[in-house]
Amino acid sequence: MKTFHIEKPDENLRPSIIDKINNLTKPKGSLGRLEEIALQISLIQQTLTPALHKPQNIIFAADHGIVDEGVSLSPKEVTWQQLSNFLHGGAGVNFLCRQHGFELKIVDAGVDYDLPYEKGIIDMKVRRGTRNYLYEAAMTQEEMELCIERGAEVVRRCHEEGSNVLSFGEMGIGNTSSSSLWMTYFTGIPLEQCVGAGSGLNQQGIRHKYEVLKRSMENYNGDGSATDIIRYFGGLEMVMAVGAMLQAAELKMLILVDGFIMTNCMLAAMQLCPAVKDYAIFGHCGDESGHKLILEYMQAKPLINLGLRLGEGTGAICAYPLVDSAVRMINEMDNFAHASITKYF
Amino acid sequence: MKTFHIEKPDENLRPSIIDKINNLTKPKGSLGRLEEIALQISLIQQTLTPALHKPQNIIFAADHGIVDEGVSLSPKEVTWQQLSNFLHGGAGVNFLCRQHGFELKIVDAGVDYDLPYEKGIIDMKVRRGTRNYLYEAAMTQEEMELCIERGAEVVRRCHEEGSNVLSFGEMGIGNTSSSSLWMTYFTGIPLEQCVGAGSGLNQQGIRHKYEVLKRSMENYNGDGSATDIIRYFGGLEMVMAVGAMLQAAELKMLILVDGFIMTNCMLAAMQLCPAVKDYAIFGHCGDESGHKLILEYMQAKPLINLGLRLGEGTGAICAYPLVDSAVRMINEMDNFAHASITKYF
Repeated sequence: MKTFHIEKPDENLRPSIIDKINNLTKPKGSLGRLEEIALQISLIQQTLTPALHKPQNIIFAADHGIVDEGVSLSPKEVTWQQLSNFLHGGAGVNFLCRQHGFELKIVDAGVDYDLPYEKGIIDMKVRRGTRNYLYEAAMTQEEMELCIERGAEVVRRCHEEGSNVLSFGEMGIGNTSSSSLWMTYFTGIPLEQCVGAGSGLNQQGIRHKYEVLKRSMENYNGDGSATDIIRYFGGLEMVMAVGAMLQAAELKMLILVDGFIMTNCMLAAMQLCPAVKDYAIFGHCGDESGHKLILEYMQAKPLINLGLRLGEGTGAICAYPLVDSAVRMINEMDNFAHASITKYF
Repeated sequence: MKTFHIEKPDENLRPSIIDKINNLTKPKGSLGRLEEIALQISLIQQTLTPALHKPQNIIFAADHGIVDEGVSLSPKEVTWQQLSNFLHGGAGVNFLCRQHGFELKIVDAGVDYDLPYEKGIIDMKVRRGTRNYLYEAAMTQEEMELCIERGAEVVRRCHEEGSNVLSFGEMGIGNTSSSSLWMTYFTGIPLEQCVGAGSGLNQQGIRHKYEVLKRSMENYNGDGSATDIIRYFGGLEMVMAVGAMLQAAELKMLILVDGFIMTNCMLAAMQLCPAVKDYAIFGHCGDESGHKLILEYMQAKPLINLGLRLGEGTGAICAYPLVDSAVRMINEMDNFAHASITKYF
């Protein structure tokens, strides 16, 4: 399996960065999270003048065999229909990409449909949807490794195009189920607290989803290692996102983490390389049950909470202007000495 | 005193707006707060295709007589020094205005300094700082009315320039003290819970500030009416912001509310015309003690919480891209029927 060499950002520059931030014309600490983000990005980029280049949002899409068990309110066909909507520019992710100058890449990781690749969808299809993990592993070891490699390949392409900041999103009816399973295995938080409404289940629907996932766990007979959990219960789009995140961190790119599913992908990536988290900025805490819990477990503080539950990277992109603000702060604000302001407050 | 005729937005259009939002290509409600904001703006503008024009941030600045009692960590001179910094483009508010395309208006409401008006500061000075309300009313009835009128005048100018969305900020060493007093009088929340660290007081400093404000309340012998509280304990910049907010609502403009001080100005404006709140979007919940309490009291849900405590309108401007997102959502997203997507989720 592909290995990634992710270095923790060198800490030597930290005092200089903090000194620069503390001398900007504002009461110390008064720009709150913007100051933290500016510090993080400056450390990643090893500079006192960080910059964001060519942001891109990558949507990985795939179908899920577990949908046959009725775990989702939406039918599987919505996966490919929404990809078509992304292509035409009419989805939630599209107006946000236009607003914030993101390029959008749409990647078929494993959609169970013949997609129009000539229209710009990137063909990385590993298989037409996962197997149903109620009865068997969602994917083979080879399929998992292919997902990791292909996710990494997409990110290398973005890097070559000049990007240093990426957000990741997903489209895949059924993927909150895989996320809940990864979460319970990787955090130890009981499954019941990891299962939520997905795109809109009622209490009865959530109960059914929980029962299906509980039986899936009972039927699981693998070795319990991180890679085996990822493989057995994963979605193809989710594993591809894991590979993408690891590659982004190896290349010292900034990773904007979206909602519940992408947070679980970051958690899975951390099982393979813990240092990946140093490159992550958590964009959004949504209303999906368990999202707050997993963020707390990861000691991650998302920038915004707008009650979004759309996926596609929308929460991460919504948070982007705040990341941009942090970078502008450290580059554009004057300091006390130069502005001749009493540094007292 | 100038009166304002603020109408509640007509509710007849509400069902059509909600219907449009619910048919956009996303699970119902899945864009959370963006959907709420889109509804609010559509009602204010009475249209299914709302638009934001020429956003401006207006900073009202003034000095405070109460600063003589040692209620602030920063010396009074910082007020005019920061105005100079705003002019030169090196302050926190400047990079945010540049980032989000805001014009910045700087208004001298009552700074105790001779400012360079020829450089673009708007001269609305009512007096050189307020009187010390530990011993006497901060301003006379005439001075208060002048503040209200002049704040309204600045907003009418913005309206003539084509703006339909404004954020308001302030610069005035000592103005968290006035804010805490307005808050305790208008909400009934005990003073102790309304007093915080301002630009960085320690526990001892907060205690001293509390004692000064408590004695000010004991010495107060006015009639307890809203206008008298505003006049007696107000800052000139704060009363001007109240007039500005009322005028903005009368003109059906959108008001982006900044941090603790501007939230108190909105609360004061609501004492005079409750309907002003329908035009307000609360941008930011900061760390100033009492800010969460006052927002809860007002049943206001700020869009972001980044731990900012800088003032100047920075919290409101940081939240602007989310307001813009809401408007883009309702205008740019496709609907289920046109995109041929199964409306099921």
